[in-house]
Amino acid sequence: MAPLITLTTDFGTRDAYAAVMKGVILNFCPDARVVELTHDIPPQDVFEGALFLAEAAPYFPPGTIHCVVVDPGVGTARLPIVVSAGDHIFACPDNGVLTLYTRQHPIHEARMITNPRFMRGSISATFHGRDIFAPAVAALTRGVPIQDAGERLTALTMLEIPEVRKSEEGLIEGIVMHVDHFGNAITNINRVHFGDRTATEIRIGLHRFSSVHETYGDVEPGHAVVLFGSSDYLEIAVHRGNARKQLGLARGTRVEVRF
Amino acid sequence: MAPLITLTTDFGTRDAYAAVMKGVILNFCPDARVVELTHDIPPQDVFEGALFLAEAAPYFPPGTIHCVVVDPGVGTARLPIVVSAGDHIFACPDNGVLTLYTRQHPIHEARMITNPRFMRGSISATFHGRDIFAPAVAALTRGVPIQDAGERLTALTMLEIPEVRKSEEGLIEGIVMHVDHFGNAITNINRVHFGDRTATEIRIGLHRFSSVHETYGDVEPGHAVVLFGSSDYLEIAVHRGNARKQLGLARGTRVEVRF
Amino acid sequence: MAPLITLTTDFGTRDAYAAVMKGVILNFCPDARVVELTHDIPPQDVFEGALFLAEAAPYFPPGTIHCVVVDPGVGTARLPIVVSAGDHIFACPDNGVLTLYTRQHPIHEARMITNPRFMRGSISATFHGRDIFAPAVAALTRGVPIQDAGERLTALTMLEIPEVRKSEEGLIEGIVMHVDHFGNAITNINRVHFGDRTATEIRIGLHRFSSVHETYGDVEPGHAVVLFGSSDYLEIAVHRGNARKQLGLARGTRVEVRF
Repeated sequence: MAPLITLTTDFGTRDAYAAVMKGVILNFCPDARVVELTHDIPPQDVFEGALFLAEAAPYFPPGTIHCVVVDPGVGTARLPIVVSAGDHIFACPDNGVLTLYTRQHPIHEARMITNPRFMRGSISATFHGRDIFAPAVAALTRGVPIQDAGERLTALTMLEIPEVRKSEEGLIEGIVMHVDHFGNAITNINRVHFGDRTATEIRIGLHRFSSVHETYGDVEPGHAVVLFGSSDYLEIAVHRGNARKQLGLARGTRVEVRF
Repeated sequence: MAPLITLTTDFGTRDAYAAVMKGVILNFCPDARVVELTHDIPPQDVFEGALFLAEAAPYFPPGTIHCVVVDPGVGTARLPIVVSAGDHIFACPDNGVLTLYTRQHPIHEARMITNPRFMRGSISATFHGRDIFAPAVAALTRGVPIQDAGERLTALTMLEIPEVRKSEEGLIEGIVMHVDHFGNAITNINRVHFGDRTATEIRIGLHRFSSVHETYGDVEPGHAVVLFGSSDYLEIAVHRGNARKQLGLARGTRVEVRF
Repeated sequence: MAPLITLTTDFGTRDAYAAVMKGVILNFCPDARVVELTHDIPPQDVFEGALFLAEAAPYFPPGTIHCVVVDPGVGTARLPIVVSAGDHIFACPDNGVLTLYTRQHPIHEARMITNPRFMRGSISATFHGRDIFAPAVAALTRGVPIQDAGERLTALTMLEIPEVRKSEEGLIEGIVMHVDHFGNAITNINRVHFGDRTATEIRIGLHRFSSVHETYGDVEPGHAVVLFGSSDYLEIAVHRGNARKQLGLARGTRVEVRF
């Protein structure tokens, strides 16, 4: 069976850009199986793209080819690349969008894309999704080896990711990394930062909590709750409500946990 | 051919949740054919999920497996279930999301999901779409019988649905059930409530109409029109306009029809 | 392999309409390969539908069947049609949605749809996507020839498209045709209107530019730039920003280029 191709972009679906990419892939490779992960990464937000990819990609079958186009630097010196990491292959700009995925999954091979077999015949300065990344995943799907793409890269561009700090004994400090569609605020503090300790106080912005619960329904509807979310990161939610609106949370809001 | 799997959720597409579910299904079942119906059910709105499903599911081929995750009670006592009803199979929380579908299509079998073959190895408290419902539809797709899921249920949770009332001879009262993307307001009054009678007055909120038309174009652009929509429910629209904005309609707006 | 079917509508994804169309196609034709291009054409905006289709459709494999439902005139005298043009087949209302595609790709055959084999058994007045266009593409997919659809049409409805004017020697005037998801304003002035001339001044609304650049990154972040976009139309963007918001651009904004 042909490998899966996934698409992750910030193109939205009002314009033809995402459709054009699908057309190009299916034109090069008529039996391709294309799965759209999202076109709703906030425009030009490489950090959000990196978060999305690190969360979603690992669940796909080994050998899946992920085409990721969040590309504010299109047409500039930033490189188009193909990367084999963990059990997956990625075609994307070298702008840090693989930062979080590759922390968990080792890079086996990274190549810049310079081989014309990985491109359309003419390359625009503003739409490499159509002209490079879609043809590249089509080439990989047809079995062209990643080594043919171009020169080997020894290092990729990486984003600076806010780290959890241990500021004093029994206190860790992090931030809200992402606020989701439900208004849940997901922090960069993982279950492993807790170890076997029990939190005695959690502060998020101006709000204080005295314990970590198991699920949303552990508090009354309309009340805020702190829990470990489905990827084991500390999360603030409102049961049957919206924590972003109710508590005024946003990416970057400071979070402190005291043990 | 493998049965179709459809997805209906309130996850939106900004976050990785819907993508993760697709990954899990395709990882368990690489030749699965996954069709996304929507991820845009309003967050935690089981009633809108029930309306959507009752309208969409019957058009799919017999044997289609519908995975429905609108699940405000995730992690609480509400049960994860698989249900055979009409010609279709459903995997969803037992929270009433099948209320409207099962009014039209008899339930043949309903089972709670307790068999580990219908789940991932570890179950989070907040993302049963990933940990239970996606693996469950993958199991069903691979041919595991619904009877293996777990204990038989003799009754499902049902939503209370607002009914059309006959308040006096020649008068029926209903409400707006759903306002669609075009601003059309769809009521709970069906063509069968009319029988062979002709309406002489229709009141919706503060607006009055004297007849039911056939299509939007029966009135001038910008004018409001009452008609039976494509599912035979009485509907208020504005020709080439938006009835929600222009007439101030919303779910719950009262509707009266006099014959 | 079965031909591809694409869907382009203004239905959004909150309501069941798009899902219903997929169900109908898959019920008629269980092995159909359905690719959704967009359901986010602005409601009833045939012009935006025409732009989208002209940009996206040509990238798909020859023989692709495009189902296009932007249909403010549903249920009125406007005809449902199937059209063979360029290398593609279209099923859509005869309302001008093919205007831009067919300027670039000759029409080989256009038929109204009257044959019951191209329809569901009963036809509503408000949802021809479900009752005519989805069954029509299913029939074409199963190999029913386009000639069977109904009577030949010798002319299609065409939209009036704003043309670029040469108002005096060395001056051309156009307008913004579309503002995209990133806030980039795409005009109706093509690279061919320039020929081998070099612009000395570009005016868009109240803004003046002295040259055409190659890509967004040619100016500093936050600065506006004029360039030829990926489809060779003159475009105004803000590097890592949003030109619509920053410059107050909209469809119809006047554009002048002086050589």
